[in-house]
Amino acid sequence: MKYRILRKSSTPFDKVHEECGVFGIAAPEGKEISAAHDAYTALFALQHRGQEAAGIAVNKNGVIHCHKDVGLVSAVFNQEILDNMPGSMAIGHVRYSTTGDTRRENAQPISITHVKGNLAVAHNGNLVNAGELRREIELDGGIFRSSNDTEVLVYTIVKERLKCGSIEEAVMNTMHRIEGAYSLVVMSPRKLIAARDPHGFRPLCIGLLDNDCYIFASETCALDALGAKFIRDVEPGEVCVVENGELRSMHCGIECKSSACVFEYIYFARPDSIIDGASVELARQEAGKYLSIEHPVGADVVIGVPDSGIPAAIGYAKFSGIPYGVGLIKNRYIARTFIQPGQDKRERSVRLKLNALRTAIEGKRVIMVDDSIVRGTTCGRLVKLLRDAGAAEVHMRISAPPFRHPCFFGTDIPERNQLLAHNRTVEEMREIIGVDSLGFLSLEACRKIAVGCKLGFCDACFSGEYPIPVPEQVNKNMFETEIPLPSNKD
Amino acid sequence: MKYRILRKSSTPFDKVHEECGVFGIAAPEGKEISAAHDAYTALFALQHRGQEAAGIAVNKNGVIHCHKDVGLVSAVFNQEILDNMPGSMAIGHVRYSTTGDTRRENAQPISITHVKGNLAVAHNGNLVNAGELRREIELDGGIFRSSNDTEVLVYTIVKERLKCGSIEEAVMNTMHRIEGAYSLVVMSPRKLIAARDPHGFRPLCIGLLDNDCYIFASETCALDALGAKFIRDVEPGEVCVVENGELRSMHCGIECKSSACVFEYIYFARPDSIIDGASVELARQEAGKYLSIEHPVGADVVIGVPDSGIPAAIGYAKFSGIPYGVGLIKNRYIARTFIQPGQDKRERSVRLKLNALRTAIEGKRVIMVDDSIVRGTTCGRLVKLLRDAGAAEVHMRISAPPFRHPCFFGTDIPERNQLLAHNRTVEEMREIIGVDSLGFLSLEACRKIAVGCKLGFCDACFSGEYPIPVPEQVNKNMFETEIPLPSNKD
Amino acid sequence: MKYRILRKSSTPFDKVHEECGVFGIAAPEGKEISAAHDAYTALFALQHRGQEAAGIAVNKNGVIHCHKDVGLVSAVFNQEILDNMPGSMAIGHVRYSTTGDTRRENAQPISITHVKGNLAVAHNGNLVNAGELRREIELDGGIFRSSNDTEVLVYTIVKERLKCGSIEEAVMNTMHRIEGAYSLVVMSPRKLIAARDPHGFRPLCIGLLDNDCYIFASETCALDALGAKFIRDVEPGEVCVVENGELRSMHCGIECKSSACVFEYIYFARPDSIIDGASVELARQEAGKYLSIEHPVGADVVIGVPDSGIPAAIGYAKFSGIPYGVGLIKNRYIARTFIQPGQDKRERSVRLKLNALRTAIEGKRVIMVDDSIVRGTTCGRLVKLLRDAGAAEVHMRISAPPFRHPCFFGTDIPERNQLLAHNRTVEEMREIIGVDSLGFLSLEACRKIAVGCKLGFCDACFSGEYPIPVPEQVNKNMFETEIPLPSNKD
Amino acid sequence: MKYRILRKSSTPFDKVHEECGVFGIAAPEGKEISAAHDAYTALFALQHRGQEAAGIAVNKNGVIHCHKDVGLVSAVFNQEILDNMPGSMAIGHVRYSTTGDTRRENAQPISITHVKGNLAVAHNGNLVNAGELRREIELDGGIFRSSNDTEVLVYTIVKERLKCGSIEEAVMNTMHRIEGAYSLVVMSPRKLIAARDPHGFRPLCIGLLDNDCYIFASETCALDALGAKFIRDVEPGEVCVVENGELRSMHCGIECKSSACVFEYIYFARPDSIIDGASVELARQEAGKYLSIEHPVGADVVIGVPDSGIPAAIGYAKFSGIPYGVGLIKNRYIARTFIQPGQDKRERSVRLKLNALRTAIEGKRVIMVDDSIVRGTTCGRLVKLLRDAGAAEVHMRISAPPFRHPCFFGTDIPERNQLLAHNRTVEEMREIIGVDSLGFLSLEACRKIAVGCKLGFCDACFSGEYPIPVPEQVNKNMFETEIPLPSNKD
Repeated sequence: MKYRILRKSSTPFDKVHEECGVFGIAAPEGKEISAAHDAYTALFALQHRGQEAAGIAVNKNGVIHCHKDVGLVSAVFNQEILDNMPGSMAIGHVRYSTTGDTRRENAQPISITHVKGNLAVAHNGNLVNAGELRREIELDGGIFRSSNDTEVLVYTIVKERLKCGSIEEAVMNTMHRIEGAYSLVVMSPRKLIAARDPHGFRPLCIGLLDNDCYIFASETCALDALGAKFIRDVEPGEVCVVENGELRSMHCGIECKSSACVFEYIYFARPDSIIDGASVELARQEAGKYLSIEHPVGADVVIGVPDSGIPAAIGYAKFSGIPYGVGLIKNRYIARTFIQPGQDKRERSVRLKLNALRTAIEGKRVIMVDDSIVRGTTCGRLVKLLRDAGAAEVHMRISAPPFRHPCFFGTDIPERNQLLAHNRTVEEMREIIGVDSLGFLSLEACRKIAVGCKLGFCDACFSGEYPIPVPEQVNKNMFETEIPLPSNKD
Repeated sequence: MKYRILRKSSTPFDKVHEECGVFGIAAPEGKEISAAHDAYTALFALQHRGQEAAGIAVNKNGVIHCHKDVGLVSAVFNQEILDNMPGSMAIGHVRYSTTGDTRRENAQPISITHVKGNLAVAHNGNLVNAGELRREIELDGGIFRSSNDTEVLVYTIVKERLKCGSIEEAVMNTMHRIEGAYSLVVMSPRKLIAARDPHGFRPLCIGLLDNDCYIFASETCALDALGAKFIRDVEPGEVCVVENGELRSMHCGIECKSSACVFEYIYFARPDSIIDGASVELARQEAGKYLSIEHPVGADVVIGVPDSGIPAAIGYAKFSGIPYGVGLIKNRYIARTFIQPGQDKRERSVRLKLNALRTAIEGKRVIMVDDSIVRGTTCGRLVKLLRDAGAAEVHMRISAPPFRHPCFFGTDIPERNQLLAHNRTVEEMREIIGVDSLGFLSLEACRKIAVGCKLGFCDACFSGEYPIPVPEQVNKNMFETEIPLPSNKD
Repeated sequence: MKYRILRKSSTPFDKVHEECGVFGIAAPEGKEISAAHDAYTALFALQHRGQEAAGIAVNKNGVIHCHKDVGLVSAVFNQEILDNMPGSMAIGHVRYSTTGDTRRENAQPISITHVKGNLAVAHNGNLVNAGELRREIELDGGIFRSSNDTEVLVYTIVKERLKCGSIEEAVMNTMHRIEGAYSLVVMSPRKLIAARDPHGFRPLCIGLLDNDCYIFASETCALDALGAKFIRDVEPGEVCVVENGELRSMHCGIECKSSACVFEYIYFARPDSIIDGASVELARQEAGKYLSIEHPVGADVVIGVPDSGIPAAIGYAKFSGIPYGVGLIKNRYIARTFIQPGQDKRERSVRLKLNALRTAIEGKRVIMVDDSIVRGTTCGRLVKLLRDAGAAEVHMRISAPPFRHPCFFGTDIPERNQLLAHNRTVEEMREIIGVDSLGFLSLEACRKIAVGCKLGFCDACFSGEYPIPVPEQVNKNMFETEIPLPSNKD
Repeated sequence: MKYRILRKSSTPFDKVHEECGVFGIAAPEGKEISAAHDAYTALFALQHRGQEAAGIAVNKNGVIHCHKDVGLVSAVFNQEILDNMPGSMAIGHVRYSTTGDTRRENAQPISITHVKGNLAVAHNGNLVNAGELRREIELDGGIFRSSNDTEVLVYTIVKERLKCGSIEEAVMNTMHRIEGAYSLVVMSPRKLIAARDPHGFRPLCIGLLDNDCYIFASETCALDALGAKFIRDVEPGEVCVVENGELRSMHCGIECKSSACVFEYIYFARPDSIIDGASVELARQEAGKYLSIEHPVGADVVIGVPDSGIPAAIGYAKFSGIPYGVGLIKNRYIARTFIQPGQDKRERSVRLKLNALRTAIEGKRVIMVDDSIVRGTTCGRLVKLLRDAGAAEVHMRISAPPFRHPCFFGTDIPERNQLLAHNRTVEEMREIIGVDSLGFLSLEACRKIAVGCKLGFCDACFSGEYPIPVPEQVNKNMFETEIPLPSNKD
């Protein structure tokens, strides 16, 4: 259970957010690398998975040093900070974007000492039984500094470590106690450990550098950024240990149907990543293909909403035979700190970020493809942009089914009643957005896009079919201020 | 003549740089707008024309207040600064990127007082007789704070103003004294003036807001960002004056063949801009078309180098029938302050910025389209990326002719001996880059791409045919340190 | 036990450092104040007690929000941050100065949640049994984020809270478990609690504002800064609770001889503070008086080393009849970030901070009074300054006995072998410093200076007589890197 | 004439401000020093003369590089900036404090190029005929970037340079054209020049380092900071030239009565400086002596208002026989960016900066000595502090006559009607301040305090007797916004 402050989207656009990206690297004994620099490079490549906060923990001879803060990787680190982080093992983390800096304590990795030594943990996912575990720990005198389920996870690992002989055993035992989505990297004085929940909700892969350093990362694009070779994905339920240059693997022993997040393919992951055997870019083009089959329409041009709508647009165009065109141009320089202009704020802020290409649009019947609709606030403005540029017709195609259900596994979907699709038919949505036709990818097609993927999918946000029971009482939007006042005394 | 410090390219990529973008806005009397906020929005849209420095000068009741600094628009301005810049008339400027902050004095607009009042000037272009004019002014006791030809321009306007009756006359008389490329906006207490040199080297257009505010901007994309209507381009040799909500126009009286910079269409301008009647995006697609005619090759996929190579790739694909594909993925989060990783720096820095999409490349014969080759340093690394991703063949197509000559009109092309094309045949270049074939757009085709453009072109950087005589002694790369020591006394 | 990184003194001067200053304020129910602003003002007044880090935790309707960072109070907080910290109860903390920013996690207050609610704690002092307690907590599965004994303290309070009925009981029970020096403020959702260890090592006082808000602060100067009335000191062993505008008090029940830190009077505290009934300024003048009795010498002028040597110099002058003069002028603008000049660094850095007043010194026999000698590095340079300015003789008088022993109660005294007095006679020290005579205050006199003080003193740093047993194995300078590697497994 | 924006005092205290401090250093040919580091050190020592802006211009082989900005020396420069400023000749400047950063263009040195080469100028003082000269230059086509009289000065030097054979001649000829107060340092490619106006309004002295580098500085305290030997003061009307390690001197040929600013001794200068032969500290003590003669009163203690009132208090005490005491304690950590607390702002801001020492004040008749009264706003609050601390009587003594007239020579005295002394008798002032008695130093005594000074004095701010005619029309408070709108055309 997460205690989180709801916030306004940090971009003018209306997207759901991934929670995190994780990374780990370990050099063989005797090999000196600047693990912090490698982590920095990798976190850049994973920046799309989280822009709220970033952190790196390095391990030099068993001593762990951690630097983290709110902000982008490029803001949190500079040359001096990295140079002061020697060590040949490291883990890193990015977390998604917010405006305030007041929740610095939620940044990861979490670096702690316990009775058996040091430990740093970076976590992507969301535990569904974190609330129960937290209460249990608190009843034992545990104190919490954050509202983060990762702190619960760390406590659990430490408590298990007291009862067993090694940190990897402790991680495995922990996997029997926690429920939900997690792709973890754990660093102890001598070991780098990666673990993925038995459902395989979130991606996690293994790479190898020329210099024999093993790497764990949320996505293969981080391996590519480092010039590392892709070895394989971490399997659902698997625990991988790198110690002294050797990779060992074991399985936690929990068997269940895999349920990888399908939205990783649709929007979250970088198109150049390959997750569990399937190319993200191709999955998006495939989605475009199915869209063109399920929702054909006579038109003159297919355009994509930059950046994430483009592959599906290309797929739609290729399969339908309607020419692909560039119809919306993105301003590369939009800053995160952009000051909203005075009047007509919201409309102008869309125009600043995107501009319609009149020569490509004017007088044409346009199919505009985007990856998803959340609140629907941006769609209307995009449609107006196209109509102002002279589009004869605007047909919207969405390369995912409508969002209708909350996610308990690490995606930040707004309150149900804020979703455009909530209690609305497609026709009602079409009218609100103001397009000539609107089509969503079907659930069936959605399950087929990730060609080559070896896992089953979780599509609960579309279907409501949760792969594990989610407690009734999980209130995703519990505010910090709602933490109940204590007993009558304090 | 510019006294400029040569610097290393601020991006890992190897591009020539545009010098500047300009903007101006004026409200009718009695109409209160926040001209600074509008200028800020417009400069965002023009940011691609210059990332070194940014500035805005506002005019409130005849008093001009200027804020400028090195850095991106988003770094130079914040809410507080803009809020402290009231006024209903403004001009703005962006300047291209460098690393040091030591040349703050070169930022624009230049705001000064003279005997007849205040003046602020923003300038895009380069004067070829600035050196002579400067010496003349210095011999008269003039002092210079910068190495900027704009300061020469301001002095000349002020000196002309002493001899005539209005600021617009002074600007017109100045046009008879200066030679070279200039698109100017000038703000006096009551007037906003735009002027474009008789050759029309650099673009400049006129727009109108719903609230009757006139706008001048380097490109139409700035009008779009403000939701302004495009009125027309400023003509070569034209001087436009906005006073009290009315637009007047005159011609400076110098007649000559127009010679708009063709490289604006190839690379500088934003694809959504329409310059002198021609769409930039379509010109790029057109360049791709001609490339496919002039340099056909059997291949499986056409890819573009993001972002500027993509339209030409689309054009190539469309005309050749070879499918367009996305083969290179750009990391959206590369920061300007990115810290170069330790080993294999340069190679890694390309990988960080771009990644090859293995699934789109593997086993395929690839045509990679880019807009230009300067030093050629990036090309080789991109080719390696593609080959590492399994490309069977790599054919490079460049949507411009080879750079072989310096530009004296506002483009920063490196020293001749740093250009890949310098003293090399296409075959020699092909070998250096390591591609299976290499083709450049022909000069003839290049002159045809801007369909609808009402002006003639300058393509001197490719052809060596300068539209105006350029003095032998213009040493484009004169260093600041080479300013000659003074006479034997001081 | 503290795990601390030794660092270089952050000032060019050679002083021992106080650990911390604490503050708390609580408004009666229904009374709305900006407790954060008051805490900010008070922390400014307490800034001399710690310049490393600063923090404030506010309580709004039972929800605690904490902001803290490394840096001075003025750097850690700004208007926006304070304005975003509403709430009518607050605690604050300042911590002493270091250069790195890497130990942000050691900043206070510590704000946590536990099973019974929220808690924030600010602590001045040092626990001698923190190591044992920490191990005990770790064996129970506790995790530690810092090397701070305050985290041990918080865990202990929370664990006690599980066993009793209120937070104040928990604090009282904790006092039976911890040993050492502590002046604490604790904030729970409804209560503000202050506690002082049974020996009364560190000061802590109670104040009251006109608007019925109760205040706790390390020194009375914080009350004065807020315009609050001084009520009384917190007694050694006392626990004070403010709840709903009412102040209650109880005693922890541990009876022992009081032992207030005498060095608070000599150097740490602000001269305008009154601690346990004795004026700090008058105590310093009194020290000067005893110095003049114990170490008389014929001279023309008595000068003090600014700022802390001045009161003793005035006292010496008054009692000896030798005129007081200003002989050393301090530069008010020396910045914390001062860049060391190239050559002759250290000498120049003293000259930058202090300058001798030639007209007051030239040809004169000078008595220079300072409060203490630690390593002795600055003394020699000051003496050279005076001799360069023409002093005929230089007699040094120190208003404290020589430092010879470590402090375990919250003062940062360097390693024994770095102390000038270590294994040296006064004559040997005199020769090293290069003065004509040198005199230290006697231990007997030192115990008499705080006229009116109601408590006994700890002078162990001078005498070696520790008021409580200090474990042999307490290694004050244990480095972080020396945290033992864990068992053979992790 | 200066065009300046009136601003609120940046300190809670009510003082007049000095305009500037200047510095120059030149190494003999072949001697490599880091002149920028020396300038930095010296500017620190001169920081009290100006806290608004700081700048350094260095000269490396004839090329001048300048860095300057608003802010304290420690904020404007850092290690990297200084390290990037190689060169063995430099000049520096500090300017007094303001809040906005919008007037960056007024920072000095001014570094320009002219027809004969480079030039950098730093200036302390104020020209009374700057307005006329400016108009003359403007009529000749000159443009101005700032509202600074130093820009006028630079133009004048450059214009003179065109007519004569060397920069030093140009400076001398300029001295015949400008009127008012100026202590200048000028740097050309090969020469460092210092000049002081014929009246000697502002101080300027010559020093020599062990390594044969000559130094010019506003005050001797800058020499001391560098460990330089004091050679002598620059004489009124003198021009000193350092070229290739040799110092030459000439006189501008204008003979007149000298009139050094007496307020330098009373408040502006650092107490450890010796100006024109007189010690500043001793002058202040002397002022205290005369005060005790002119305004005796029975009292128990004499206290000074820190920091500048202390020497006069010591002088008063010494001569009157009433004991000197410390009655007000200053908080060393008050930041420039201090956030004003909510209620009772102004009162609290005084309490934060100063606190009364109750034990020294209670029940006593107190004489409080301060150096001057400007608006009188602080005085009342200080008196309240003393009365709240139990003072039986408070007698205020001011070590200067009342301010009644504007200064045209470089001091920023508020508008006449804001001065407490304007149209008020001493008795009226006494009542407003709320003291038992009030005494100002007489004009006669004021003229005697700088014992040993070789020059006559300007005391026009007290006496109204201006040493040179000041034009009726000089409107010291002309606002920038009042620059008249231009002729009907622009």
